[in-house]
Amino acid sequence: MSTAETIAKNAHIASTILKTLSDSERSQALQEIHDGLKLHKSQIIEANQKDLTNAINNNLDGPLIKRLDLSKGDKFDSMLDGILEVKELEDPIGKITLARELDTNLNLYRVTCPVGVLLVIFESRPEVIANITALAIKSGNAAILKGGKESLETFKVMAQIVNEVIASKTKVPENSIQLISTREEVGALLDQDKFIDLVIPRGSNALVRNIKSNTKIPVMGHADGLCAAYIDDEADLKMACKLVVDAKTNYCAACNAVETLLINEHIAVTDIQTIFQSLFDAEVTLHITTELLDQLEQEFIAKNKKFITTATEEDFHTEFLSFDLAVKSVKDVESAMSHINLHSSKHTDLIITANETKANKFLNGIDSAGVYWNCSTRFADGFRYGFGTEVGISTNKIHARGPVGLEGLVCYQYQLKGTGQIVGDYGNGGRAYIHKDIDIRTLNQ
Amino acid sequence: MSTAETIAKNAHIASTILKTLSDSERSQALQEIHDGLKLHKSQIIEANQKDLTNAINNNLDGPLIKRLDLSKGDKFDSMLDGILEVKELEDPIGKITLARELDTNLNLYRVTCPVGVLLVIFESRPEVIANITALAIKSGNAAILKGGKESLETFKVMAQIVNEVIASKTKVPENSIQLISTREEVGALLDQDKFIDLVIPRGSNALVRNIKSNTKIPVMGHADGLCAAYIDDEADLKMACKLVVDAKTNYCAACNAVETLLINEHIAVTDIQTIFQSLFDAEVTLHITTELLDQLEQEFIAKNKKFITTATEEDFHTEFLSFDLAVKSVKDVESAMSHINLHSSKHTDLIITANETKANKFLNGIDSAGVYWNCSTRFADGFRYGFGTEVGISTNKIHARGPVGLEGLVCYQYQLKGTGQIVGDYGNGGRAYIHKDIDIRTLNQ
Repeated sequence: MSTAETIAKNAHIASTILKTLSDSERSQALQEIHDGLKLHKSQIIEANQKDLTNAINNNLDGPLIKRLDLSKGDKFDSMLDGILEVKELEDPIGKITLARELDTNLNLYRVTCPVGVLLVIFESRPEVIANITALAIKSGNAAILKGGKESLETFKVMAQIVNEVIASKTKVPENSIQLISTREEVGALLDQDKFIDLVIPRGSNALVRNIKSNTKIPVMGHADGLCAAYIDDEADLKMACKLVVDAKTNYCAACNAVETLLINEHIAVTDIQTIFQSLFDAEVTLHITTELLDQLEQEFIAKNKKFITTATEEDFHTEFLSFDLAVKSVKDVESAMSHINLHSSKHTDLIITANETKANKFLNGIDSAGVYWNCSTRFADGFRYGFGTEVGISTNKIHARGPVGLEGLVCYQYQLKGTGQIVGDYGNGGRAYIHKDIDIRTLNQ
Repeated sequence: MSTAETIAKNAHIASTILKTLSDSERSQALQEIHDGLKLHKSQIIEANQKDLTNAINNNLDGPLIKRLDLSKGDKFDSMLDGILEVKELEDPIGKITLARELDTNLNLYRVTCPVGVLLVIFESRPEVIANITALAIKSGNAAILKGGKESLETFKVMAQIVNEVIASKTKVPENSIQLISTREEVGALLDQDKFIDLVIPRGSNALVRNIKSNTKIPVMGHADGLCAAYIDDEADLKMACKLVVDAKTNYCAACNAVETLLINEHIAVTDIQTIFQSLFDAEVTLHITTELLDQLEQEFIAKNKKFITTATEEDFHTEFLSFDLAVKSVKDVESAMSHINLHSSKHTDLIITANETKANKFLNGIDSAGVYWNCSTRFADGFRYGFGTEVGISTNKIHARGPVGLEGLVCYQYQLKGTGQIVGDYGNGGRAYIHKDIDIRTLNQ
């Protein structure tokens, strides 16, 4: 058996035991992992410093180094608090979501259960180890974690602590959390569709795209965040300026930042220029269609020429992740919707209007995980939604969408409890099904 | 643009309009389709007779011809009734499943919505056209349907009627239901992951496996139905015989028929022989491990030798779909669970025991869509579960499992409704999130 197959099979076997533990057993394990990491803080920070030194020697980008550094501010303590927050969440497992009497003493129950085995692939942030370990164990899933080479030293020390704690102090089976560090193994693990149930990539577009193209296992996540804002002719001008500037500039490298701006063609040129001016003031470069550019005042263009470029068709398919924004005018809310449904990455899209009918048309007609009315696309985030720690943001259209918490790691099984019933006794003049729903509120207490 | 891309893109555009129709508009369309098919019954039956003649001329198998024949018994009327049953189901769209106040006048809603565009590929049964059209429109999804070449004539006539009715009598947009008939197009459609959201194959294992290996689009269905039954040492012997015989012989070609029998090693040889005898009486051939065979009485073996063969390891990975059953003995419920979790196709598995503790261990530990206690695996079916028409049975581990009704065609979106809020105003001494849940019961009325 290949190494990857052994890792995946062992995770699968562990998952079937982990699945049967009680919430208190799973939660107690999180407490022990928290305590273990806290106890060995200095050892972890020491390893993390080695990673930082290596990163500096390898001339890594500033933001990447910043993400790597566990000693910065309260990052280490936040990581530990995160584990306890997950511990306190309601148990997602064993909830009855449907109960039905099929016949006398033949009862059907739909019960939530873990997905099984997760393969989580992430880049530089070492705190993801604690985060995903907590979410996986709380939801009864085994997890195989693969971190980036930049955080290898931190990763190795944390992995050792987590596994020692699990083995010595908890009922969580061995191999529930496996940490791997070589790039070769990932490719082989992506072939283990027999044992791995869900792949969760957390990192760059390139990482996610590469994984999606190389596995038959379902992938939960997002490659692109191509979000759009539509400013309607019934929008409040001041609100429009404020929302667009925040959605573009609050954190331009985020997946929920806006990349396309659609402007209703009935908005007066002076108002359009007000909107643009607020973006120029925030140092945003606009990629404007020639059609729209032709309507602007020459003086206005001349004054702001360093922030103006002509839009290409490609710009409306581009996730800039920078202070760039593609702009075009559209006839009405329907045209905006058509543009967005064909161009957006189904992440989060926004309408700015005072007209509720148009807003509802937009909210119901847009085919994205997040559909927003009069608020910044930057709210698309598990913490802001009040989900606690998030697994990631999904642009998939099945299973889980948008910011995903524990519920994305849970599915369900049908349990059927009988007293010897056979199918041969039903139909053709035999027994008939009762199909009477049982009140699930009493069952879940 | 390729033909496949045009078909997929048109379906996507139709889906974004279909998504905004009200339940009454979608339900009215089902009534019109029902009426249209009823009105043209003779025309459909005539086309169906051509398919039957072709099938007979091409020497198709008897069961295949039987499945093709729409004039048999009440099949045509059942097909029509099925459309009205789906029409009467509760609207699965627009249900609020979470509502939360993030801040004053900034409210988050999780609302059920259609998945988008379905690609449904099926073999000979022509009634699937009516069935899937009804389920797709009711759930607000566009669908591309590809039937088998055996039912081409029936398919063409029904497609024409459905599309004429949709265009002339309903608000359902053109291209919501597209019917394609050439094999070439399927391959190209499986590449349209930008526009198609879910593939539903209904047919042989070979069909499903081939589709799963050739697309990045999520596939909902099952290739295998390798179900197992475990007879515990605390099982009622008579019940065990009855359940195993039904699970194997009630309809051996079904995916929910049992293929593996695991017997607790503490059961007396005479009792094991009683179980085997009931299977031999039903003409089942047992593939028995040498280990277990060695325990049987020579006389018993001699008497039943035409129904006994020695099991190979491969037999425990085989979906026989015939009157064959692989049998081995296991030490206890844990060993049975290990065997099943490693060998089963995660469809439906059964424990027969009078011991509730062991039963619950099995139900919680088995990693399959259906986990059964003291009743036949043959109950794993949408009609028997009371779901009405089913889309199929899923052995996936995310999104939808087991028999899947309308809920498998539905996902959700997050709607966020604000009054100008920006993310820049929160955190770092600014505004704080409220995160107060809103009672959804009042919202869904």
